[in-house]
Amino acid sequence: MKHDISISLSQDEAIVLSELFGRFERTDVLSLAHNAEFLALQRVAAQLDKTLLEPFEASYADVVRLARERLAAGFEGRAPGVTGDEA
Amino acid sequence: MKHDISISLSQDEAIVLSELFGRFERTDVLSLAHNAEFLALQRVAAQLDKTLLEPFEASYADVVRLARERLAAGFEGRAPGVTGDEA
Repeated sequence: MKHDISISLSQDEAIVLSELFGRFERTDVLSLAHNAEFLALQRVAAQLDKTLLEPFEASYADVVRLARERLAAGFEGRAPGVTGDEA
Repeated sequence: MKHDISISLSQDEAIVLSELFGRFERTDVLSLAHNAEFLALQRVAAQLDKTLLEPFEASYADVVRLARERLAAGFEGRAPGVTGDEA
């Protein structure tokens, strides 16, 4: 369960995503400014889905909850862009 | 300029991002529901920045514009979540 997952991107996809994340960092607003950003995110999502198709031992909701908790452990307050009430 | 770029994620980061992108696909709304999603995106952004530190031949604005155009070539209309007027 602890192996690293590798995502492959073209240089164009990397540039486009880097600009998206840079804008998010500057403005604290996560929004898409161009179709290319949607397509680059889709490329990431497709690779994640493919990698994560392995069966989970727990229910999907529990898998997500536990992964979130492990990842955000020790993070104080609400991070930029977080609007849900689950945080 | 055309080599692939590899991003490495832990399984927790991959699960959290997969849930974020799945929610975006279901709702057409790109928003963060948990601090862990912010942290996982930061991990991706940091790796992209590190990889893309190589000097660009053109100005940054041109590099982004051309990468976006190449990536979105042939995509009709406005993709979900795209709110900018640059698309």
